[in-house]
Amino acid sequence: MARRSNKNNTNNNSGGGKQKTLKIIPLGGLQEIGKNITAFEYGDEIIVVDCGLAFPEDDMLGIDLVIPDVTYLVKNKEKVRGIILTHGHEDHIGAIPYVIRELDVPVFGTKLTLGLVGSKLVEHGLKDKVHLQTVTQGQRIRLGVFEVEFIRTTHSVADTVALAIRTPVGLIVHTADFKVDYTPVEGEGIDLARFGQLGSEGVRLLMCDSTNVERKGFTMSERTVGESIEQIFMRSGGRRILVATFSSNIHRMQQIANAAIKFGRKVIFCGRSMLNVVDVATGLGYLNLPEGSVVDLNDIDRYPAEKLVLIMTGSQGEPMSVLTRIATSDHRKIEIMEGDLVILSASPIPGNEKYVFKVIDDLFKKGADVIYESLADVHVSGHACQEELKIIHSLVRPQFFMPVHGEYRHLKRHANLAQSLGMPEQNIFIAENGNVLELTENSMKIAGSVVSGRLLIDGLGVGDVGSIVLRDRKLLSQDGLIVVVLTCDRENGGILSGPDVISRGFVYMRESEDFMDEAREAIRKVLVKADQEGNGGGRRSWGNTKTLIRESLRDYIFDKLKRRPVILPIIMEI
Amino acid sequence: MARRSNKNNTNNNSGGGKQKTLKIIPLGGLQEIGKNITAFEYGDEIIVVDCGLAFPEDDMLGIDLVIPDVTYLVKNKEKVRGIILTHGHEDHIGAIPYVIRELDVPVFGTKLTLGLVGSKLVEHGLKDKVHLQTVTQGQRIRLGVFEVEFIRTTHSVADTVALAIRTPVGLIVHTADFKVDYTPVEGEGIDLARFGQLGSEGVRLLMCDSTNVERKGFTMSERTVGESIEQIFMRSGGRRILVATFSSNIHRMQQIANAAIKFGRKVIFCGRSMLNVVDVATGLGYLNLPEGSVVDLNDIDRYPAEKLVLIMTGSQGEPMSVLTRIATSDHRKIEIMEGDLVILSASPIPGNEKYVFKVIDDLFKKGADVIYESLADVHVSGHACQEELKIIHSLVRPQFFMPVHGEYRHLKRHANLAQSLGMPEQNIFIAENGNVLELTENSMKIAGSVVSGRLLIDGLGVGDVGSIVLRDRKLLSQDGLIVVVLTCDRENGGILSGPDVISRGFVYMRESEDFMDEAREAIRKVLVKADQEGNGGGRRSWGNTKTLIRESLRDYIFDKLKRRPVILPIIMEI
Repeated sequence: MARRSNKNNTNNNSGGGKQKTLKIIPLGGLQEIGKNITAFEYGDEIIVVDCGLAFPEDDMLGIDLVIPDVTYLVKNKEKVRGIILTHGHEDHIGAIPYVIRELDVPVFGTKLTLGLVGSKLVEHGLKDKVHLQTVTQGQRIRLGVFEVEFIRTTHSVADTVALAIRTPVGLIVHTADFKVDYTPVEGEGIDLARFGQLGSEGVRLLMCDSTNVERKGFTMSERTVGESIEQIFMRSGGRRILVATFSSNIHRMQQIANAAIKFGRKVIFCGRSMLNVVDVATGLGYLNLPEGSVVDLNDIDRYPAEKLVLIMTGSQGEPMSVLTRIATSDHRKIEIMEGDLVILSASPIPGNEKYVFKVIDDLFKKGADVIYESLADVHVSGHACQEELKIIHSLVRPQFFMPVHGEYRHLKRHANLAQSLGMPEQNIFIAENGNVLELTENSMKIAGSVVSGRLLIDGLGVGDVGSIVLRDRKLLSQDGLIVVVLTCDRENGGILSGPDVISRGFVYMRESEDFMDEAREAIRKVLVKADQEGNGGGRRSWGNTKTLIRESLRDYIFDKLKRRPVILPIIMEI
Repeated sequence: MARRSNKNNTNNNSGGGKQKTLKIIPLGGLQEIGKNITAFEYGDEIIVVDCGLAFPEDDMLGIDLVIPDVTYLVKNKEKVRGIILTHGHEDHIGAIPYVIRELDVPVFGTKLTLGLVGSKLVEHGLKDKVHLQTVTQGQRIRLGVFEVEFIRTTHSVADTVALAIRTPVGLIVHTADFKVDYTPVEGEGIDLARFGQLGSEGVRLLMCDSTNVERKGFTMSERTVGESIEQIFMRSGGRRILVATFSSNIHRMQQIANAAIKFGRKVIFCGRSMLNVVDVATGLGYLNLPEGSVVDLNDIDRYPAEKLVLIMTGSQGEPMSVLTRIATSDHRKIEIMEGDLVILSASPIPGNEKYVFKVIDDLFKKGADVIYESLADVHVSGHACQEELKIIHSLVRPQFFMPVHGEYRHLKRHANLAQSLGMPEQNIFIAENGNVLELTENSMKIAGSVVSGRLLIDGLGVGDVGSIVLRDRKLLSQDGLIVVVLTCDRENGGILSGPDVISRGFVYMRESEDFMDEAREAIRKVLVKADQEGNGGGRRSWGNTKTLIRESLRDYIFDKLKRRPVILPIIMEI
């Protein structure tokens, strides 16, 4: 288990100048602060903690993924000693395939975390290009001037660690995502004792998860979900059971599978990401599925309803997930039968509520019985609530505190919580992504910022969609588009053909034909008038003509319909 | 107060044929069922309950409002005796200005409800075109074969009523939106006794609000919010206070104003809809603001921070609301000052969470202190929770039950609640909008459906944006647009100019110039090849040419970038 050597003098490395200064830089520009990727820089050495992505927000039209802009790390790439991963969630590992192309450094993580990274690298054709180095809970590694210890914690994915980072300016404890679970489904609970030992040793800075700081009390143990699920299975009668949950929550899947086996049901896993994680987790021994307990979806018809449990993706109402496709009768192999029992073993992530409720409504309409969070304890969070945070603060007793992992209001609330426990306000630092926090042996401050931000990924393009493109997509989505095309004589500017007016997403065509005729006529008049006044066609002023078309059509449409479609005048020259 | 004549024989009207049959038709096709508008039809008479709108869902791009499709009522307009409004919320009155143009019938409602309708009609230039008839809580009116009694209830807008509708097939109780508040801010609490009397008389059908059926226990009284707000004001020190709440919640505004007056602060109302409601409610005596207690926003600088309370719109993070504009430094007259105390006296409506949290984050970043629901009891719901619903069911003891006001899962849960109280499953009817429910003296069933649906309002257009237009807007918003323009010879199909390739919302232009050149070249090759093979240009096949351009460019782009922009080929003839 955890190696627990007690004292370790970390001040014997040379710092950067007279005053030893460590820079801590939460990077990325994503919504949460200090979550997806953070750099620790001392002299000419940098270590990076986590390397995650975010899912696009509502206004990022057409965007698939959002990754952090790591320009700062790329500029300093000869300094970077490695990337340290705390756990295998997308928002902590998902940007590895993109970032690793620009930063050729080793990646450290526990077995399951690297297993999940590995299958990502395979997808991206990068399997043998990255040096993955497995660590165990309790292990310490040295990376240049830094020593990093991996502390056993509990979260909604197995094999999660917190970090104790020994630096020339002192010891930093970084909880990463965690909850205080004394009875996880596999293995031991969070290593609270180690947090206490580190606290006794003297912690310069605590960086702590703020996700659930708004919630009072304690997050319940993952094990309570298993008990609820068993109860539901017991009372399920002869009905088929479908359970949707997060594909990364291996302990959840284990508990569902255990309940299935207990009640003589076969398990079918459905959904690409779920099958992928099951594959990785089973191979590494994190998921324990006895021979014959799992059957293939293709064999579903060989088993009666009362002998089946389907575990699937779709707990967030994602459009392409298995449960969503079932709910809209759009799945090739699974159809809802009257009386099916569907369990949503998850909470809607903020912003997903409408999609999740739509799926629940659709399932009810098809005659299924749906059990979701407000009906039974079929989900627990993976993050620490207020009382758990107080435990960590009290064990670690840091000199400085930097709340991380949360939106701004969470960090603010976490700062208040720390103050209520006696931490002086001036020792608390609420950063934004891109800020540089300087920690010395006796002080901490926010000292400027570096280039930071987010890169939008659309299809194969990384960063080629920026704010102008998004603005255009937004405008197009609001009132659609009108294209006006003219063919003109290159020599004298005379109109040879058009104006043709074509619309998309503006109004329903059949109703708009008259309208388009009128618009065409209005444009023609404007052009004729401009010609007469001498500021219309002619080679010197295509720009003017386009502006004239755009403005006159804009006014005409706004006047008639109070709409503002995008107007795209095109002039062809012959 | 309430006229309480005890017995009233309603069976002396002639029905439609041998078997007396009442049709109940929840109309509209909006998200919630049986909420926005419901028709009750007996023989050749129809009464309509409520006439509300919905706000657009995320996938209704560019849409401003959604109103119910009342084709069925318009087809039967000679039957319609009137529209009865239960309270003044948008989802119950907001479609009046649209529907009333097609149905020239009187509109009945309590004083405040009609006050709010009236200001809407003024906006739409319909002030003198509609016959508004004020009723009081407790009053009964006769409309043809129907008698409608207005029962005093409590909700998040004052002057709300439930309905007891006497029909030839028996008595129907329709709760509309309600909560059981024994101590509302003004007037008496919900008239529970009347529900009990009606129950004793014998209720054929109960239609009951299902909004909060997922919540256990009771909704707290509106008065508790006043107490919380007073506590916060008391401890506010010399700070300026800003409160955002729903502009229709007059009792909430009254309580905030009362607290302001108590602590020697002036009230400033901000936001167009809030000023409008304050105007109506003050004029009708529902809002009691002593002389000199309210000052104008233009005079804000004449008062020190500690003497002010600003009550404003924006509790849902709506983009154009006062609080959102303040949070993004986009308000002309109000700027956040360090230490401002902001209270969000509202819960995010599902789907609005992200917008609300963004506003909270922005306010915190500007140095304000923000109090929202998870921090203090600054909001209560206007809808009945499970224990309140049980009270109504137990008092009314109906023969049949039809859960209304909620999405499908709410109705399902409400049905389960009714069953748990002893209602037989076969006496419960979960309808969808457009269903026709037939109620006779001894039976109820769902008997088919009528034309129903929703009309999307975009600018001045009502219903001219349909599913094709929305689909196009969605496609345009995903990967943008590429327009390909060719000028061709009308006679021989030869290319005279182009192809020109123009994009919007596709990729950032500077990076895409080469790409566009390549695309142009690819199209040119395809056209030349097609010409050689004899299936390209020429007068007979512009359609073929366009298909060719669209398909070749689509494949080219998907291959290079895995994106699918809308491709719009345009051929100009000369």
